[in-house]
Amino acid sequence: MNYFNDLLLRVANGEKVERPPVWIMRQAGRYLPEYRAVREKAGGFREMIRHPEFAAEVTIQPVDIVGVDAAIIFSDILVVAEALGLPYEMIESKGPNFPETASPEKGLDWVRKPDQAENLSETWAALKIVKRELAGRVPLIGFAGAPWTLFCYMTEGKGSKDFSKAKAILASEPAFAHQLLQHLTDTTIYYLKGQIAAGADIVQIFDSWAGALGRKWFTEFSLPYIQKICAAITEVPVIVFARGATHSLDLLAELPCQVMGLDWATEPETAHFLTPKMALQGNLDPSILYGDEKYVRAETLSMLKRFPPGRHVANLGHGLNPDMSVQNVKAFIETVKAFEYSIFFQK
Amino acid sequence: MNYFNDLLLRVANGEKVERPPVWIMRQAGRYLPEYRAVREKAGGFREMIRHPEFAAEVTIQPVDIVGVDAAIIFSDILVVAEALGLPYEMIESKGPNFPETASPEKGLDWVRKPDQAENLSETWAALKIVKRELAGRVPLIGFAGAPWTLFCYMTEGKGSKDFSKAKAILASEPAFAHQLLQHLTDTTIYYLKGQIAAGADIVQIFDSWAGALGRKWFTEFSLPYIQKICAAITEVPVIVFARGATHSLDLLAELPCQVMGLDWATEPETAHFLTPKMALQGNLDPSILYGDEKYVRAETLSMLKRFPPGRHVANLGHGLNPDMSVQNVKAFIETVKAFEYSIFFQK
Repeated sequence: MNYFNDLLLRVANGEKVERPPVWIMRQAGRYLPEYRAVREKAGGFREMIRHPEFAAEVTIQPVDIVGVDAAIIFSDILVVAEALGLPYEMIESKGPNFPETASPEKGLDWVRKPDQAENLSETWAALKIVKRELAGRVPLIGFAGAPWTLFCYMTEGKGSKDFSKAKAILASEPAFAHQLLQHLTDTTIYYLKGQIAAGADIVQIFDSWAGALGRKWFTEFSLPYIQKICAAITEVPVIVFARGATHSLDLLAELPCQVMGLDWATEPETAHFLTPKMALQGNLDPSILYGDEKYVRAETLSMLKRFPPGRHVANLGHGLNPDMSVQNVKAFIETVKAFEYSIFFQK
Repeated sequence: MNYFNDLLLRVANGEKVERPPVWIMRQAGRYLPEYRAVREKAGGFREMIRHPEFAAEVTIQPVDIVGVDAAIIFSDILVVAEALGLPYEMIESKGPNFPETASPEKGLDWVRKPDQAENLSETWAALKIVKRELAGRVPLIGFAGAPWTLFCYMTEGKGSKDFSKAKAILASEPAFAHQLLQHLTDTTIYYLKGQIAAGADIVQIFDSWAGALGRKWFTEFSLPYIQKICAAITEVPVIVFARGATHSLDLLAELPCQVMGLDWATEPETAHFLTPKMALQGNLDPSILYGDEKYVRAETLSMLKRFPPGRHVANLGHGLNPDMSVQNVKAFIETVKAFEYSIFFQK
């Protein structure tokens, strides 16, 4: 059988679907024993990304094991920071750490042009393997971090509660901020175009720290760069996930993208009202998966009913945690797959 | 001169004011050299709270040094967790840590009744000193954490990126969650009534981690307990600050409280539309204070113009950081004090 499950692409393109497609942020992750096995074999998170065969293997795992309707390439948003010339390490159960940070004092002479980057081809190579091995079973999602989110990590050096170092630069050195954000934008476009050439059918932009900005700064320091990226990516549909930017949904609605990702704190009805032209993605609170299976199914169903029929990509409102149960992940996915839009249209 | 600056109380009571009152969250804090001196003398944060004379001294400092229109008693929201029977330590530059956490497995037999608490009287004693020493110069604000926020710290044991342990309990053991939240509510009411008896002219409830919940769980696990507290406090006005709960402003609007605190991510116009009966407090992004003085003044002025005249308590949208400059804090306060509502009403 050579059936191509293109539900995700049909929703993104505004075409008719029988039910919502489903995938999950961090679906290739530590909750899967099979993922942990590859991670150990590879020697850690960074090593999996550096070796395309490992990245490809874990990318495909959730398609086979939990039955998602799309694969998302296993990589890390910070590879673009490294491509610019700022290396980082990943510290177990703590997160990323940049030994050297970006700062106005240091300037930007160190920044490499997009085509001087050495590491981006690792992701492209992994995409090629996945594309071949998927053999059209489900669409393949590429991704990148939004420039503002990368700016946060590069200036703070690591995660932060309030990103006050990054924000201090917006207040005190806005010109520097715009220069670095533009460099990040240039390399991100280059990176995503390479992903598409390597087989990505659709791409998602993760602005994980959009919520660190209020509307005014989001409009000045994040949105314009997301806009440039969306405008440059004309080959495939684009999903934008600006976590915590509910205050700017009306502005996000104007982006040249096809799908708006919602975090779990955003009301689907509000989002649909404010972004009527876009399909919506999300947004079950991942913590629901800490309940029992019956609870997961009931909450998933009630989430599904709140999105506009045919304009929904089912997902969580944030990533899966390592301590979530495979059984509950499957319950979430099965509930979506059993949800048929025909119930709305039959009379 | 025996002038009593009651601007804050007048706004809370819906009376006429000439200009917005101003105070700042964490105004008694490490940005002040005078505060750091007391902290060193006392031997740390916890010791300042345990010794009412130190707590009183730093409570009054910002009134004298930066000229705020209200004093807020120096204490910690976690004293209520300790009152219940769960002691904690404060780790320098890391935050609170509970050696033992609350959990469904352990049950709630350990919980003390409000009047068995040993530590609450420390805050009450500090309030009495401050009240006497202020001699009516400005109103005195009491405060407590919201039950949900205390629940987060008590179940996680410390701060968290996503409070997934606390939220897992909401999904898996909701009955336990409600029991602990009710205990916290009972002790909080007892604690606040004691603060009022000791001289608090107004109280604020801090739901710092409201934003960890979406609308549905906020409505089930946080709002009802804030509601009970507001309903119980009839002696003085109440300010509610539910950080990150913009998604539920229409529900917060129904609380029996007088002032709604806004974080910096909430648009003042939206909040006024959704909570028309309440005065609003906030909400400049604290990171603005990392800019130069001219920038701070300009942004403060533009913030002031966005709030309904006469129905605004000027504040930041979150607390001050230790590395913020006293000069910029003063620039913020001076800008508010120079802002006269008469410009709106004169024709």
